[in-house]
Amino acid sequence: MTDPATLADQLRTGERRLHELDDADAETAAEARRQFLAAETGADLDAIGDFTFDAGQATDANVENFVGSAQVPMGVAGPVAIDGGAADGEYFLPMATTEGALVASVNRGLSAIDDAGGATARVTDSGMTRAPVFRVAGVAEAETVVEWVDDHAEQLREAAESTTSHGELLAVEPYVVGDNVYLRFAYDTKDAMGMNMATIATREAADLVEAETPAELVAISGNLCNDKKPAAINAVEGRGRTVTADVTLSRELVEETLNTTPEAMVEGNTRKNLVGSAKAGSLGFNAHAANTVAAMFLATGQDEAQVVEGANAITTMDAREDGLYASISLASLEVGTVGGGTKLATQSAGLELLGLAGGGDPAGSNADALAEVIAVGALAGELSLIAAFCSRHLASAHEDLGR
Amino acid sequence: MTDPATLADQLRTGERRLHELDDADAETAAEARRQFLAAETGADLDAIGDFTFDAGQATDANVENFVGSAQVPMGVAGPVAIDGGAADGEYFLPMATTEGALVASVNRGLSAIDDAGGATARVTDSGMTRAPVFRVAGVAEAETVVEWVDDHAEQLREAAESTTSHGELLAVEPYVVGDNVYLRFAYDTKDAMGMNMATIATREAADLVEAETPAELVAISGNLCNDKKPAAINAVEGRGRTVTADVTLSRELVEETLNTTPEAMVEGNTRKNLVGSAKAGSLGFNAHAANTVAAMFLATGQDEAQVVEGANAITTMDAREDGLYASISLASLEVGTVGGGTKLATQSAGLELLGLAGGGDPAGSNADALAEVIAVGALAGELSLIAAFCSRHLASAHEDLGR
Amino acid sequence: MTDPATLADQLRTGERRLHELDDADAETAAEARRQFLAAETGADLDAIGDFTFDAGQATDANVENFVGSAQVPMGVAGPVAIDGGAADGEYFLPMATTEGALVASVNRGLSAIDDAGGATARVTDSGMTRAPVFRVAGVAEAETVVEWVDDHAEQLREAAESTTSHGELLAVEPYVVGDNVYLRFAYDTKDAMGMNMATIATREAADLVEAETPAELVAISGNLCNDKKPAAINAVEGRGRTVTADVTLSRELVEETLNTTPEAMVEGNTRKNLVGSAKAGSLGFNAHAANTVAAMFLATGQDEAQVVEGANAITTMDAREDGLYASISLASLEVGTVGGGTKLATQSAGLELLGLAGGGDPAGSNADALAEVIAVGALAGELSLIAAFCSRHLASAHEDLGR
Amino acid sequence: MTDPATLADQLRTGERRLHELDDADAETAAEARRQFLAAETGADLDAIGDFTFDAGQATDANVENFVGSAQVPMGVAGPVAIDGGAADGEYFLPMATTEGALVASVNRGLSAIDDAGGATARVTDSGMTRAPVFRVAGVAEAETVVEWVDDHAEQLREAAESTTSHGELLAVEPYVVGDNVYLRFAYDTKDAMGMNMATIATREAADLVEAETPAELVAISGNLCNDKKPAAINAVEGRGRTVTADVTLSRELVEETLNTTPEAMVEGNTRKNLVGSAKAGSLGFNAHAANTVAAMFLATGQDEAQVVEGANAITTMDAREDGLYASISLASLEVGTVGGGTKLATQSAGLELLGLAGGGDPAGSNADALAEVIAVGALAGELSLIAAFCSRHLASAHEDLGR
Repeated sequence: MTDPATLADQLRTGERRLHELDDADAETAAEARRQFLAAETGADLDAIGDFTFDAGQATDANVENFVGSAQVPMGVAGPVAIDGGAADGEYFLPMATTEGALVASVNRGLSAIDDAGGATARVTDSGMTRAPVFRVAGVAEAETVVEWVDDHAEQLREAAESTTSHGELLAVEPYVVGDNVYLRFAYDTKDAMGMNMATIATREAADLVEAETPAELVAISGNLCNDKKPAAINAVEGRGRTVTADVTLSRELVEETLNTTPEAMVEGNTRKNLVGSAKAGSLGFNAHAANTVAAMFLATGQDEAQVVEGANAITTMDAREDGLYASISLASLEVGTVGGGTKLATQSAGLELLGLAGGGDPAGSNADALAEVIAVGALAGELSLIAAFCSRHLASAHEDLGR
Repeated sequence: MTDPATLADQLRTGERRLHELDDADAETAAEARRQFLAAETGADLDAIGDFTFDAGQATDANVENFVGSAQVPMGVAGPVAIDGGAADGEYFLPMATTEGALVASVNRGLSAIDDAGGATARVTDSGMTRAPVFRVAGVAEAETVVEWVDDHAEQLREAAESTTSHGELLAVEPYVVGDNVYLRFAYDTKDAMGMNMATIATREAADLVEAETPAELVAISGNLCNDKKPAAINAVEGRGRTVTADVTLSRELVEETLNTTPEAMVEGNTRKNLVGSAKAGSLGFNAHAANTVAAMFLATGQDEAQVVEGANAITTMDAREDGLYASISLASLEVGTVGGGTKLATQSAGLELLGLAGGGDPAGSNADALAEVIAVGALAGELSLIAAFCSRHLASAHEDLGR
Repeated sequence: MTDPATLADQLRTGERRLHELDDADAETAAEARRQFLAAETGADLDAIGDFTFDAGQATDANVENFVGSAQVPMGVAGPVAIDGGAADGEYFLPMATTEGALVASVNRGLSAIDDAGGATARVTDSGMTRAPVFRVAGVAEAETVVEWVDDHAEQLREAAESTTSHGELLAVEPYVVGDNVYLRFAYDTKDAMGMNMATIATREAADLVEAETPAELVAISGNLCNDKKPAAINAVEGRGRTVTADVTLSRELVEETLNTTPEAMVEGNTRKNLVGSAKAGSLGFNAHAANTVAAMFLATGQDEAQVVEGANAITTMDAREDGLYASISLASLEVGTVGGGTKLATQSAGLELLGLAGGGDPAGSNADALAEVIAVGALAGELSLIAAFCSRHLASAHEDLGR
Repeated sequence: MTDPATLADQLRTGERRLHELDDADAETAAEARRQFLAAETGADLDAIGDFTFDAGQATDANVENFVGSAQVPMGVAGPVAIDGGAADGEYFLPMATTEGALVASVNRGLSAIDDAGGATARVTDSGMTRAPVFRVAGVAEAETVVEWVDDHAEQLREAAESTTSHGELLAVEPYVVGDNVYLRFAYDTKDAMGMNMATIATREAADLVEAETPAELVAISGNLCNDKKPAAINAVEGRGRTVTADVTLSRELVEETLNTTPEAMVEGNTRKNLVGSAKAGSLGFNAHAANTVAAMFLATGQDEAQVVEGANAITTMDAREDGLYASISLASLEVGTVGGGTKLATQSAGLELLGLAGGGDPAGSNADALAEVIAVGALAGELSLIAAFCSRHLASAHEDLGR
């Protein structure tokens, strides 16, 4: 029965469906599915059947109807020195991407940063959020519910934290819209990205709200969390780590390494990242932060769909007497070094390369450091891309216009 | 010299840097980098060194400072019948993800859709955009430049299209902000996602603008494109494919497959996806479209950072006499079946599984079909997740409240 | 010298400029300006020279280069019963507008609400904000400043409150973007709209921040307040009063008074106010809340430019067994019953008509009540306009489609 | 029966309601309402009963349940020279406001602009929009409808224009969201603000769509117009007039008139208007454009609720060798010089003061000029307020930091 060909046959005849192969081990089931799918579609699926992670672990934690792997080329950028709140030292950044020139671009930026003595980075705010929506009879009842929540912070904390050995409830923020009450719970989830932890804890707290008030839970997520959608609430209030990185490059460095001037960089940043984004009705005031976030997320086992929030970033540049000040501020970078995809073989290697695999000491410091490193990588990408734009045009333009 | 250990040594001594291994073949250089990095950081990098794609191809097109691969578990959901403008028939959806339960959730939704006779999908708008920003002296000069652009549509088209054998310039939309002129060029890029094609063509057109008007190019992208940032301009005007999918599920199907009622689904969708997102200041009015977009992007060689725009989606649900009408509309889904990461071994297999590898006939139809299939996958994810929220609570709630 | 004709002559010759008439009383100066301007432009300015407020008071508090008044037609809608947190009883709503049909529309809505027994309303959050921006050296210094602020809440409160006899500092929320630190101060300003109070208090607190930390104040408003710009931070976090009003109309009432059905109203609200606004990239999910806000602001002496934030409103409708539930939630309604334009003769009369002129008992209750009344007026406008849309089309449509 | 006291009595007894006084002339009915309301509420309403406009005209066109007027103090700023596409010459700007210091602030800015030789202004785009929402069966039907619309542009134009002697249909842009089709009609409405004209014309065109396609009209406005809500679609695509104004102030002028430096102004604008607004999730990247828009709207008979869209403005500043370049770009300024409140006595005087009362020659030029003048007023307000922020702090700061 655990022979792949037999199982594939059963899939073909409809005796089993793709998710009804639980009695076979993960590798066998995957092989059966590939055989079946190859026959059905004519596709050559051999390449996806050859992988380095543990199939059983993957099917336990990461995927259903498992057939193999998608393999994304990985490069390395750096090294770069980082003076962070948690990150400290020299880092090589693993990046998995299919976009040619991205790793080279970040590498060039990191090289400039490193030549300047490295970047500074800080996690300025932290908290994984989950915001259930409750139905109430109306505005008057909403007020009652919100008052109850405000008065029972301690009980809510106890309920939420009863479900987790590590997580801590930081705050509960209520929002009322007619007969909807949204409660935005924020947690310190340490080195875990923490969405599952936050969901489970919030469910327990929501049960308490339902038991003690007239509110009825409609959905454990009411989209004020906000997970995997571009949303101002994350850009303004943060989710996961809010992290900022900056560097000051001397004028010489800008001219020699980036082939442009601080003034040209500032102009490019203002016209594109600030004014252009303003006109576009954007929540992202940067050139391509999402590129670095996506590539490092993939290389370190983060949730790829959360690159959406990772793109909520503001890049600033300022020409100072001593050169170019540049910063990037990512409002809602959701990262972890335990759980999710972090245990998979290649992703774990990515984290090891950074020296950030597993839980940190103190708890949370590895995830903080990962956020800081990603921010520095994104900053490097901004410097490099803006410089590439400016180097061709701005030098001559500045001469012509006498600026 | 092409011995990995020797190269690793040279990296260690600083004789070479990570990107200075061009004389070695891709595999050797990667091995050298891994040896060097493992020694530097203590990381075990073996897992990333074992991959199924062609290293030379990857280093030519996708990555620099190549060290190996990130491997992401792939599952398959479906089959589902799709009546699309380009998609037509039964599809199995490849999804690469590390988020447990995602494939199962989409699979459940697809199963319901398939039981209902399949989904309908249409690409309602199409065009890859690139929007350079030009510096002008001021408002009066901006007016002159915009007039020139309006009067020379044909010349701009010729310039742009001179750089490409397939692409077609569809439109140029000007935006003025003080002394900035942004020109948003939109192209039909057929089966390519088309950002490179659009960039190269726009550069040529921008040269013409610079030659013929007083405008000076500041950056080939002025962030009104808008690439990889959450932006209303994409949500409103579209980028890549604008695609909508819908289905009507009978009341019985909703009750039996999704364990809830059409009314409960509508309530959940309204309170969470519409009102909750409204309160969150969001551009994404959906539950988790980005999850499906990210997983299918990864499995089919799309640009992972463009999941940012893929999350600009609106989910609607309507309780009708005959059951539940549900739709999802993705405003800016940037996909291709040629170029980018589509040629990598596992991603190519993902496209083959869909029967959509390579260029379509007519040109563009494979990318259109891919967009439609992803939209149906995202619709399935919405149905499944909203149902999961509603099944626990809404049934009893409705009884209690007599609704 | 205080003869208008002589002063007008001096304006004509350039001996004086428009703002250099301080030695004349307000009426005389206005007359002189009108004579001068009439001669310069040929305009007949008599109509603006005839007004009922006290010219001296107006020039002291409200206007410079005073020439007279703009007169806007005022109507009255209502009465309507309101069960509010502060409002209580029957209210006639004064509305000043030039948009024909607006007062009639709100009146129709209020009539339906009153027939249903009146509306419920609650101020769910309150706080006038001011957010200065400080320059710091970089991320590391930003962290220091934010820590100082967090550690010196009491001192900041003392500094801020030293400038006001009524205001109370509620909270200080820090935001870091590169080398910018924004501190969002929120105050309870009682019955005053409070922007001036908040500005003066914040200036004192900002002085303390500058004295005790390396931060340098750049602007007393850094646009995270956010005053008179559409901004998600207000829509999400509130500014001034966050207020919600709702009502349940029986099916009979909807059919007889509004000539439509609850289901048609819900459909109209969803397709227009929710889905349409979502697609438009809007922060306003309502039909025309700004109309009522603007007209009542004008009639009661509020700041007309703050109608911008008043438009950040979400309208919800729900068809229940017992009829139609409808609500409106205004996130950032900035109102006062003392200060600003509230003392002008006609505006003071508008407030008297509501029984809300001057300070309330307890302090703040008049402004709370005003917010609640405006919310009910806006709710009435929503009901009336959506009904007007639906009455023509939806009845027949529902028959045709069998929904 | 037309004796006010008798009518007031009938209102008191419930024999008549507020809107049931049609048989009395406007003044008498207003007097009756005031007597009734004064008795009911104890309010002294004399001040609102004394006004200069024609009561009959106001009740015909602007207001229902008429009781009198709200009177807002009016000041005048200027003169300022404007080189516009339509505006040409020196202008005095009428502003009606209750916010002390506003007129003085704008006046100071205008003075600086005038000293610099005046401002340049251009209407860069124009079109009043109305976007009905239609219900369709689903995606496939939506495609059919959109195709029909694309194929019948001429018929739609004829239908729309059959309702108006002046208006011209410029474009129809379709948007599909599931089973909703939104058609955004844009019109040239000449010197009228044009919302009524656009609504009436669109209704006729919508009838045609309903007659010829399966689409059913749900609401003549589907919120993609977008009227009186903050919305990216207006900020990006424009509504009414899209207008930009700019000026270059010499370094001396900045230092002497504004008491600051070009560099300090740029810094203030960047940190507050660009970066601060970015962090706030704002659609308004300016300091207080809405103030000028609201005050000039009130003084010239515009729709006060449309100040919402008027706040969608971006202010830019650039330090050049020759001084400070400053601009403001208002995306969606909806203005008219005929219709609406423009005929009221004081508002008509406001327009006369500008030389812009009534229809322009060519048609539309007066409204264009009004938009340009308002833009210059808003630019003046930006210069003045940013300078006020900067003058205290930046000079010393620049010394300290050596920048």
